[in-house]
Amino acid sequence: MRENRQTTEISQVGEFGLIEHLTSDIKPEHPTTLLGIGDDAAIIEAGEQSMVITTDMLIEGIHFDLSYTPLKHLGYKAVAVNLSDVYAMNANATQITVSIGISSRFAVEDIHDLYSGIKHACKVYKVDLVGGDTVASQSGLVISITALGRQSLKKIVKRSGAKENDLICVSGDLGSAYWGLKLLMREKEATRNAPELKPKFEGYEYLLERQLKPEPRKDIVRKLSEAGILPTAMIDISDGLSSEILHICKNSNKGCRIYDEKIPIHPQSTKLSNEFQIDPVVAALNGGEDYELLFTISPSDYEKVSQIRDISIIGHILPNPQQHEIVFRDGTTIPLMAQGWNAFRIDK
Amino acid sequence: MRENRQTTEISQVGEFGLIEHLTSDIKPEHPTTLLGIGDDAAIIEAGEQSMVITTDMLIEGIHFDLSYTPLKHLGYKAVAVNLSDVYAMNANATQITVSIGISSRFAVEDIHDLYSGIKHACKVYKVDLVGGDTVASQSGLVISITALGRQSLKKIVKRSGAKENDLICVSGDLGSAYWGLKLLMREKEATRNAPELKPKFEGYEYLLERQLKPEPRKDIVRKLSEAGILPTAMIDISDGLSSEILHICKNSNKGCRIYDEKIPIHPQSTKLSNEFQIDPVVAALNGGEDYELLFTISPSDYEKVSQIRDISIIGHILPNPQQHEIVFRDGTTIPLMAQGWNAFRIDK
Repeated sequence: MRENRQTTEISQVGEFGLIEHLTSDIKPEHPTTLLGIGDDAAIIEAGEQSMVITTDMLIEGIHFDLSYTPLKHLGYKAVAVNLSDVYAMNANATQITVSIGISSRFAVEDIHDLYSGIKHACKVYKVDLVGGDTVASQSGLVISITALGRQSLKKIVKRSGAKENDLICVSGDLGSAYWGLKLLMREKEATRNAPELKPKFEGYEYLLERQLKPEPRKDIVRKLSEAGILPTAMIDISDGLSSEILHICKNSNKGCRIYDEKIPIHPQSTKLSNEFQIDPVVAALNGGEDYELLFTISPSDYEKVSQIRDISIIGHILPNPQQHEIVFRDGTTIPLMAQGWNAFRIDK
Repeated sequence: MRENRQTTEISQVGEFGLIEHLTSDIKPEHPTTLLGIGDDAAIIEAGEQSMVITTDMLIEGIHFDLSYTPLKHLGYKAVAVNLSDVYAMNANATQITVSIGISSRFAVEDIHDLYSGIKHACKVYKVDLVGGDTVASQSGLVISITALGRQSLKKIVKRSGAKENDLICVSGDLGSAYWGLKLLMREKEATRNAPELKPKFEGYEYLLERQLKPEPRKDIVRKLSEAGILPTAMIDISDGLSSEILHICKNSNKGCRIYDEKIPIHPQSTKLSNEFQIDPVVAALNGGEDYELLFTISPSDYEKVSQIRDISIIGHILPNPQQHEIVFRDGTTIPLMAQGWNAFRIDK
């Protein structure tokens, strides 16, 4: 691939840099394209209810390790992560397509397991599997899913609507999926040369569940709607809180201030973080795959949002688009940096 | 993957068998799903103009060989094959999403080349690239594209509407992409150990073009519309004529008779087939990747369709769903069999 010209390693520019490089000159031109690249999903004209569309690809050895991921869970998760992007637009997920690439290492029964997880997620979230492609692969397993959702255009929530003084909210807890992954990797290592040992998962079941079988927050979309709250901006947390909050700030041309003590962390995460001697807030800021919703609301919705279980207010939006900060318990304030989850980085 | 249970090799059931096995129990339930799995594309409610959605995955070493496929052509083709499925629904392609998995073997410039082909196809066919995913891959290149299209529901053409006595029509010529591939593979082999030799492509440029840069038949959809012809059934020819015609027959619960002398074959295909001593009709029936349109029309549209350049009438629909036959010049009639293009078969 690299004959007589100067080339740039992909790791030099990173995933976001590469996407920016490839897509910066793309301008939607079709009249039915209401929003193109740059949010959790694109928006397409589709009558009374507009359509959102999003896609994700999962590759063996990069996004999952079959030595500790049951295929059924993997199928479920592959659907879940796509639906999460639909919910992050404040839309209702309706259909998915599923393409898989499979090597001869897999038997029909394995693919049946994978599909049973996919179909189970479809049932739980009430979406239809309407198409796909099943092809041979020379190496590992590849799963590519595209999800569609619907919502009236005025209720679709983008990343770009955050206003000064808006409250920054997050659902559930953060960092748990990261800790689940750390635990799985530790126990894989510990039992690698000692098959008589059983992995030690007791007391950390919640973290495993969060890593292996994440649930996208359809319930939060519903609860916000029932409470009469329309977020001003929303994104799902797939790459860690700091990366996602910076996306909202960039797209909204605003800054932010968040408070470390407000960041919701599960007791099991705190406990395991002690074993690893890693600050659980760091994991919450930079760990991936939480699939919680991060959103901003008008301060006037404060009372309403306070009534909803499982939502935490962690900060607020600042007017200065250069100012992104996290305030610690002792009053120290440091700039928020996006480390995020970069699959092209070698250390992940 | 294959511990203590009985397993079935995927090659035993084949691609279509596997898809059937995985999807036979899937029933669309969402009210906006107008048609699910089983046609070139699914149909989704979307206001005045319904939406069609289709997806394809291309994997290095299975669907393409980068030793003779320029990345720019590959990007163009990856879009083209998806749009072909949209046109096969008699719809207008409007948007695509593109997900790619790339290994560190590729440089940013390579991916730029790939994307320049993708963007060029978008420009030629007037579709918007509205989203995607860019991820790392441990081995080869993986491209997964989903295409959306629009058409009023009453003009969307499925595989299932063929009626007795309908004329069977095909656009362009068949087998050329197969011959292009044979030529590329022959010359790759011939020059493998002799870098001083140049591959011999003279006189076969059309076949190479058909393999490396197929054009989906948007023009045929337009011409049929302008002529006031609404096909009764339609499919695109990705797996060879016999496989596709049998899909139409199965979905329409009908039989068919086609005439070998009516099958359109390009002079370059005939010439190269002599070199290989393979019957060009066999290649037209079973070779893949033509991306022409196969469709049936009412006999009353005979005059109209005869006016359109680049469409051949190759046979007609029979009432008996068990009867699929091809009639040869000498009057011999043999049953039509689907060999198609099966990526799980070892000999392809």
